[in-house]
Amino acid sequence: MKIDLKPSTYLAPVPAVMVTCGDARENNIITLAWVGTVNSEPPVVSISVRYSRHSLPLIERTGEFTVNLVTKELLHATDVCGTISGRDRDKFEAAGLTRGAGRAVGCPYIAESPASLECKVIKRVDLGTHAVFFGEIVNVVADEAVVKNGRLALEAGRLVAYENGKYLYTGEQAGTYGYTAKEKK
Amino acid sequence: MKIDLKPSTYLAPVPAVMVTCGDARENNIITLAWVGTVNSEPPVVSISVRYSRHSLPLIERTGEFTVNLVTKELLHATDVCGTISGRDRDKFEAAGLTRGAGRAVGCPYIAESPASLECKVIKRVDLGTHAVFFGEIVNVVADEAVVKNGRLALEAGRLVAYENGKYLYTGEQAGTYGYTAKEKK
Repeated sequence: MKIDLKPSTYLAPVPAVMVTCGDARENNIITLAWVGTVNSEPPVVSISVRYSRHSLPLIERTGEFTVNLVTKELLHATDVCGTISGRDRDKFEAAGLTRGAGRAVGCPYIAESPASLECKVIKRVDLGTHAVFFGEIVNVVADEAVVKNGRLALEAGRLVAYENGKYLYTGEQAGTYGYTAKEKK
Repeated sequence: MKIDLKPSTYLAPVPAVMVTCGDARENNIITLAWVGTVNSEPPVVSISVRYSRHSLPLIERTGEFTVNLVTKELLHATDVCGTISGRDRDKFEAAGLTRGAGRAVGCPYIAESPASLECKVIKRVDLGTHAVFFGEIVNVVADEAVVKNGRLALEAGRLVAYENGKYLYTGEQAGTYGYTAKEKK
């Protein structure tokens, strides 16, 4: 039995990430789930930022941001960075996180994240509540321990997802893209 | 020890969804992971479609699409729809899926999905390999069994995520948004 529901942001599971922005002097962390990959070559991500957020003018001014992936171990810090404002507190300090000096961008990355996607804004779209920034990934800063053959190779289940107000662990591998075609052969 | 990697589409975990498009006469299913929420009010999602895809002209012609959420039980069908082309086969038939007649849009939804987000295109952005469509969610068709107080309330762990070529199960709830602020009080 199907029923109609009032439209809402039900797409799930989406990533839970910490986005860093600003420069060496003034910077901030913003926890976001309204993010996604939008293009493969070049690799481009989109991040959506509420107009009221302290991070918005930092991203506007520099045209740069970094998407830091979130592991289970980083969940507490991620929630802290999602519930306090950079106007009131230094979020790196409040959440116990370490600044790494940006490599291809001016904003710091989060040293505790296994992989940080350094991005330059190539387009902005304005919608009702959020500014959407498309950022081309220009460099990836990764822990040597999670790199294999020059590519990011995180174990399944390390990252955290977000679904309608809840953080969810990701679990075991359910399959590999294209597995049904291989089964047929 | 941090190293720099060649930029790639490393954002994860992202949703694995089946998008339906077209109209009652000609329609298709496309499996996508380059999707995301981009605005809260009104609720807007983005979907990125490779230029070569059979679904692209269908979305262009109708200005509509439906995002069908993917449970574990739908993973096999999702992979099938991601590896064959609607040019060659009827994907509903090939994947064993049932068409539901669209309610607020002309394209069918997938009856086996617990929730289908019916969308109207409000903007298109063209990038290197993908056309990005922003779709306002105009109606949500949901299984009565997963609705509570008029809202979608899926159990944690029912949906599937995608991470760098792998499908991942989502697992237990790791926390609720804002849990660290509540702990402090």
